Amino acid sequence: MIEIRKAEETDFDGIWEIFHQVVERGDTYGYAPETSREQAREIWLSKSHATYVALLDGELVGTYILRANQPGLGSHVANAGYMVKNGQHGRGIATAMCEHSLAEARRAGYLAMQFNAVVSTNERAIRLWERMGFSLVGRVPQAFRHRELGLVDLLIMHRFL
Amino acid sequence: MIEIRKAEETDFDGIWEIFHQVVERGDTYGYAPETSREQAREIWLSKSHATYVALLDGELVGTYILRANQPGLGSHVANAGYMVKNGQHGRGIATAMCEHSLAEARRAGYLAMQFNAVVSTNERAIRLWERMGFSLVGRVPQAFRHRELGLVDLLIMHRFL
Repeated sequence: MIEIRKAEETDFDGIWEIFHQVVERGDTYGYAPETSREQAREIWLSKSHATYVALLDGELVGTYILRANQPGLGSHVANAGYMVKNGQHGRGIATAMCEHSLAEARRAGYLAMQFNAVVSTNERAIRLWERMGFSLVGRVPQAFRHRELGLVDLLIMHRFL
Repeated sequence: MIEIRKAEETDFDGIWEIFHQVVERGDTYGYAPETSREQAREIWLSKSHATYVALLDGELVGTYILRANQPGLGSHVANAGYMVKNGQHGRGIATAMCEHSLAEARRAGYLAMQFNAVVSTNERAIRLWERMGFSLVGRVPQAFRHRELGLVDLLIMHRFL
């Protein structure tokens, strides 16, 4: 049973475990692989966006952030980023978080959701976003320094809400 | 004769005049049209990027910023934003600033330059970027609330350096 709720300060130990696992791989997120615990706290628990956690039978197994993709005249488009704990893939956690974020974004009045930097080799994520109604609207050549593969493309994906 | 150099604190009066003119129109930049002078100073003279000014016969007629488009694993791609003073268009100021920024970006070791949010109705800018070697790599539908035209598309443009 997956429960999703707003993150609290006391969730940070669990968030940091996931953030560090994901970012250290250097294959899906642009954050520097050596990002420290305190930098991660500033990035992921920033007051400028909303942070959520996903719990599976009480264990913190995922986290996501939701924010405006741009300030000002682009602030009607939302942006989100999701992370799932190692060993917990294939259990519907990312799907549940994505559905939750789409509902939260709609409730907050956003008209669309945009992902700016989907790593082109992250096929599992791309298939998931397509299933969730996102389509490819752009491809930036060699914009991501993948830790194992070198320079790979970044995809821009979008859906209306 | 157009001279381009790094901005100094004493340039801010001239920068603010241009920034305010451009942003108030709400047709090319996402910054909120009501952005205040102090907010503009924080945005445009931020220490997290480089700021330049263009002078025509000693008058401050343009300004641009240059930065990494993303931190971490995307930091090899540059991003820039240019503004030209009202009444000074058609004199090669934007072209000169763009050429200057490409040279500066190359010198700083960037591998490419990306514009994330070119307003699709800003035809003069699009033609200029194409002349400067940029190509369209993405189009985000209705991502910009144009002050006169309502929701219009944003273009993503890119070139290698």
